[in-house]
Amino acid sequence: MRAALLTEYRHDFALDTVPDPTIESPDDVIVRVGAAGFCRTDIHMWDGQFDAAQKAAGIDLPFVCGHETAGWVAEVGEGVKHIAVGDAVLLHPLATCGYCHACRAGDDMHCTAGVFPGLFAPGGFAEYVKTNARAVVPLKGDLTPVDVAPLGDAGLTAYRAVRKALPFAVPGSRTVVLGAGGLGHIGIQALRSLSQTEIIVVDRNAEALEHARGWGADHVVLAREDRSHVAEVRDLTDGAGAEVVIDYVGEGGAEKDGVELLGANGVDFLVGYGATLEVEILSQALFPETSFVGNICGNYNELVELVALAARGAVTLTTTTFPLEGVNDALHALDEGRMIGRGVLVPNEK
Amino acid sequence: MRAALLTEYRHDFALDTVPDPTIESPDDVIVRVGAAGFCRTDIHMWDGQFDAAQKAAGIDLPFVCGHETAGWVAEVGEGVKHIAVGDAVLLHPLATCGYCHACRAGDDMHCTAGVFPGLFAPGGFAEYVKTNARAVVPLKGDLTPVDVAPLGDAGLTAYRAVRKALPFAVPGSRTVVLGAGGLGHIGIQALRSLSQTEIIVVDRNAEALEHARGWGADHVVLAREDRSHVAEVRDLTDGAGAEVVIDYVGEGGAEKDGVELLGANGVDFLVGYGATLEVEILSQALFPETSFVGNICGNYNELVELVALAARGAVTLTTTTFPLEGVNDALHALDEGRMIGRGVLVPNEK
Amino acid sequence: MRAALLTEYRHDFALDTVPDPTIESPDDVIVRVGAAGFCRTDIHMWDGQFDAAQKAAGIDLPFVCGHETAGWVAEVGEGVKHIAVGDAVLLHPLATCGYCHACRAGDDMHCTAGVFPGLFAPGGFAEYVKTNARAVVPLKGDLTPVDVAPLGDAGLTAYRAVRKALPFAVPGSRTVVLGAGGLGHIGIQALRSLSQTEIIVVDRNAEALEHARGWGADHVVLAREDRSHVAEVRDLTDGAGAEVVIDYVGEGGAEKDGVELLGANGVDFLVGYGATLEVEILSQALFPETSFVGNICGNYNELVELVALAARGAVTLTTTTFPLEGVNDALHALDEGRMIGRGVLVPNEK
Amino acid sequence: MRAALLTEYRHDFALDTVPDPTIESPDDVIVRVGAAGFCRTDIHMWDGQFDAAQKAAGIDLPFVCGHETAGWVAEVGEGVKHIAVGDAVLLHPLATCGYCHACRAGDDMHCTAGVFPGLFAPGGFAEYVKTNARAVVPLKGDLTPVDVAPLGDAGLTAYRAVRKALPFAVPGSRTVVLGAGGLGHIGIQALRSLSQTEIIVVDRNAEALEHARGWGADHVVLAREDRSHVAEVRDLTDGAGAEVVIDYVGEGGAEKDGVELLGANGVDFLVGYGATLEVEILSQALFPETSFVGNICGNYNELVELVALAARGAVTLTTTTFPLEGVNDALHALDEGRMIGRGVLVPNEK
Repeated sequence: MRAALLTEYRHDFALDTVPDPTIESPDDVIVRVGAAGFCRTDIHMWDGQFDAAQKAAGIDLPFVCGHETAGWVAEVGEGVKHIAVGDAVLLHPLATCGYCHACRAGDDMHCTAGVFPGLFAPGGFAEYVKTNARAVVPLKGDLTPVDVAPLGDAGLTAYRAVRKALPFAVPGSRTVVLGAGGLGHIGIQALRSLSQTEIIVVDRNAEALEHARGWGADHVVLAREDRSHVAEVRDLTDGAGAEVVIDYVGEGGAEKDGVELLGANGVDFLVGYGATLEVEILSQALFPETSFVGNICGNYNELVELVALAARGAVTLTTTTFPLEGVNDALHALDEGRMIGRGVLVPNEK
Repeated sequence: MRAALLTEYRHDFALDTVPDPTIESPDDVIVRVGAAGFCRTDIHMWDGQFDAAQKAAGIDLPFVCGHETAGWVAEVGEGVKHIAVGDAVLLHPLATCGYCHACRAGDDMHCTAGVFPGLFAPGGFAEYVKTNARAVVPLKGDLTPVDVAPLGDAGLTAYRAVRKALPFAVPGSRTVVLGAGGLGHIGIQALRSLSQTEIIVVDRNAEALEHARGWGADHVVLAREDRSHVAEVRDLTDGAGAEVVIDYVGEGGAEKDGVELLGANGVDFLVGYGATLEVEILSQALFPETSFVGNICGNYNELVELVALAARGAVTLTTTTFPLEGVNDALHALDEGRMIGRGVLVPNEK
Repeated sequence: MRAALLTEYRHDFALDTVPDPTIESPDDVIVRVGAAGFCRTDIHMWDGQFDAAQKAAGIDLPFVCGHETAGWVAEVGEGVKHIAVGDAVLLHPLATCGYCHACRAGDDMHCTAGVFPGLFAPGGFAEYVKTNARAVVPLKGDLTPVDVAPLGDAGLTAYRAVRKALPFAVPGSRTVVLGAGGLGHIGIQALRSLSQTEIIVVDRNAEALEHARGWGADHVVLAREDRSHVAEVRDLTDGAGAEVVIDYVGEGGAEKDGVELLGANGVDFLVGYGATLEVEILSQALFPETSFVGNICGNYNELVELVALAARGAVTLTTTTFPLEGVNDALHALDEGRMIGRGVLVPNEK
Repeated sequence: MRAALLTEYRHDFALDTVPDPTIESPDDVIVRVGAAGFCRTDIHMWDGQFDAAQKAAGIDLPFVCGHETAGWVAEVGEGVKHIAVGDAVLLHPLATCGYCHACRAGDDMHCTAGVFPGLFAPGGFAEYVKTNARAVVPLKGDLTPVDVAPLGDAGLTAYRAVRKALPFAVPGSRTVVLGAGGLGHIGIQALRSLSQTEIIVVDRNAEALEHARGWGADHVVLAREDRSHVAEVRDLTDGAGAEVVIDYVGEGGAEKDGVELLGANGVDFLVGYGATLEVEILSQALFPETSFVGNICGNYNELVELVALAARGAVTLTTTTFPLEGVNDALHALDEGRMIGRGVLVPNEK
């Protein structure tokens, strides 16, 4: 099959022919790739940032990136009965075991024996990708692979934090969303469709803030170097602080904004990363009784829910598509800040 | 292998030789049976009450009963990596698929493709039983199959209701447990070890009530035909009604007791069955804002928790053991009310 | 002050002058009534159905009905500091004590020392009504008493059930709302604004079903005498039954529909009343593991939330206003089924 | 009345006569003090650490400390009906308003208009103390003021964290308790009586660890300067980390231990303070999906629960009593590390 290969860090991907994946375990599933989201993590891999982690896992270049994949089932192992060849599917990023304590609790991302195609196994920048039977989510209604591929990772991560926040985001509450980029884009729409909390979006990019209004923000605030936006947001919460912060940034000072913007009983949902969170225990955690809650990608059933939101039109993605051969165009567009919405490679049309 | 066969309803089980179970699916597991609880449901099967249900599922006599099984792994399918031949295991009663929405939520009993050995597939009254890899719970510490077999169904059902009740059974609350028999025996111990709620146990059997004190009851009340026990229990709750009822009986008037004994915001956990629950909506559900919550057997992780309780000595079982050849002794002892604790068949010693 | 007096059951209300209410306790609050919803319960009182209950509480005719009241604070007791004369307020129906276990848990309706104006104390069909400081909810934004009065009881009851249902009404779930009348009208809007569950509304009134689409229903089903609508709804849930039922009817067979329409783990929220709920324990509660949850009017903070929803325009009321002197017009319009939306008496203009 | 006065920072308290408190508001309550816990916070006040905060609140020396008070009701305001003169009561530390959003949610400590005797109003180191009707918890059974006074603050703070932890501290889980001092002493007993989690207690004091075994610890680990105890605890959790950490220390490195000892989905409950919590977002919060939850003193109903635990003997306090005149003995004993258990002043015998 054709695949986009990362052969050398910081060099263009090479289009080449590699062997097709094959069924080896009874629950293996091979998917003909219809769409593969191009994520910032793929740039980090291209940049070599995963070199040590991959080597530790016994993985060398060349490598096939791509962990936001959708397509059609091409072949299944002998133990797979609940899906059939030809089914349109979106892949949960982690192929989980189904046996460990986490899997038994519906806590897929903490599976102790999961395989992560596109990070620690060949991914979706190819005609075919191998995953397992626990990773495939059937598509509903008229949704196509291109419509949904970025929901598999970026969308699911954004959604999980929103879902955890909902019990706190009651009518009359204020929710500060830090970051209106790839994750915020989906998170804001999901939050709007599932709550009437007053949504205050903060971003450094004025254009993104304009979009945020369309996604459902009640207020938008431009983040500034002098951090004057913190007082501005605090005013929007009557000086009391917000019930909820969802931090899709996690660095560059956003992590400090989150701590300072919480009110009594406030919960700061951490999604973006890069920084170290610092919380003065007495004044910032005990007196206000705040919580700081880490988030990772959602579980399988949450992805099913997110697909249901997409099928209802409650969450829509802005995407730019590229043929598989356009992988380097996608790389450069994203790397240079020229990408409009999420870039999606299309190795196979229907 | 040797097996106890139900060949004709209401006739003694026949000890005979039948073919050993064989691995057919990649996740099959065959267990050498070390202990098989003899449950009242087995008497219902012997009585013919499952005839229609089994026939509808394409199952005919002779049949191998037994759905509370523990033993040692004898053979595994090619897809099974997380357990090994020789491991001591307790079986969750349902061999679940791992793929449906319920399985993905840790809601095992609502698996849409599960197999139930002992009810709709050959069970544990034999030297070997076939289940699957998702059903086996490794035993911890010094626990043996005989120690734990009845936890797999009776214990797990009793425990799930307790676990759901815990958030309501706070210090200062009152919990009425209806029934101090097979399920109540385990439920009372579990509740005592996990809460300081005031436990009030109601049963028709004075001897069972004496045992209940030892299991942790704060008060015991004899159920009488004239239902005078209802007022007696209500007095023990200062006339206000209980925060929690766990009804392990579900018939013979106990279901009415549960409704009447609830106070404001009370929750009635339904476990036993036989009757129809009747609730006058305005006066018994709306004004007091009560809830009536159905329960079935717990999930896999709950069984792991119950085994952990047993390993700590927080829950202990009273059992009477029989060799496989003693199956009819067990049948008659249970049927005639002479069984002390739970009857357990032992087809194989270690 | 002028008041509409119920002087004789099933006779028109008499407009008369009665003494103004006076401050007697330090937390008393007197409100100049700007709007008083005319509820079906007022008809039940007019009909004499509360005669025994009122007599038991030492209350005789003539009586001032009206328990859905909004207006402006006219006078406060010496212990009241957090509200001021002139404030526009909506009244929570129960004037609670603030000291009992229920009040301390935010569980206002189960206050053991509450006073209920309009049922067990003079109500809002008058120029002034007395309540206490814990019952007044300040109005936000441009909301006026007429805009919100029916939220105080009908709205708050509908909303509480929705709020309890939200954790189950996840994307991809199906929620059956039984009844698109006074409560359903508000409940459907609230549910739509706070979830993306598939809403299926069932009512006997085809016109109400048309309105239900506008309030956010995805499907509407006409309830028929032959109960054929049950199969129709079940088809809409792929034969599996619904995750959530909210029963705003509670009689005439709706209570049976609720039981039959639940799927695995389904929850039936009981709001309407009149009938006895019957649940066959084994097949309708244990195997499907369903719950049946009673609901009463919401608490104070839930009313604050509902006002926030109204202020956002997420919930809007259809009302017909009458001057206080028009109380009998309102009575007859409601009694004869000619009322459009909720009838609201207006004893005082701003 | 006689009172122990803080007249000059870091000088002995002066015993003197001051005016009795008087009823000024309708919900005021005056309590004859039967027991007043001597807390480390009282040393901080004596040390002058609250000087700025008190001055900002318009409070000057001399001041009456003491915020863990129990006694008998001596006088009540005209609005107080639910308690009577002579009732034995334990005081919740905060006299709350009953009207704000927090009070309405049972979230007493975040009352926006509360009064805190002993910190921002005269406290319990005197014959009488003034609080309000929402702060008094009736004592049950044979409990006396001396038995329970320290539950009002130290106990309630320890208990609230335990209560939040219970849903995570299921059978089979591991809970690390950092600190076996004043709070840990109560927290460990409460946790033991309400769960079967494996309790691992860490402290720098070997003697405290011995006591911890008696309170219910399964394992005790000596905290060392070289932090070797972190690896030791991690081994006790099979290398996976703990499901729950309760940090009663919050400084001196314990706050780092908490972060490092959490496993997947672990929750670190912050109670002790002094340090800044530092969490590397990606590796310590997102990948393991951990949460860090601030805690403050519990609410009124939680104090009722804690009194119920004490009445059952599930939580017992070790105390050393002093007459009011012995206040300086208590001060020096605590300051010099010679206090056995909690010091309690006894201004009035029964």
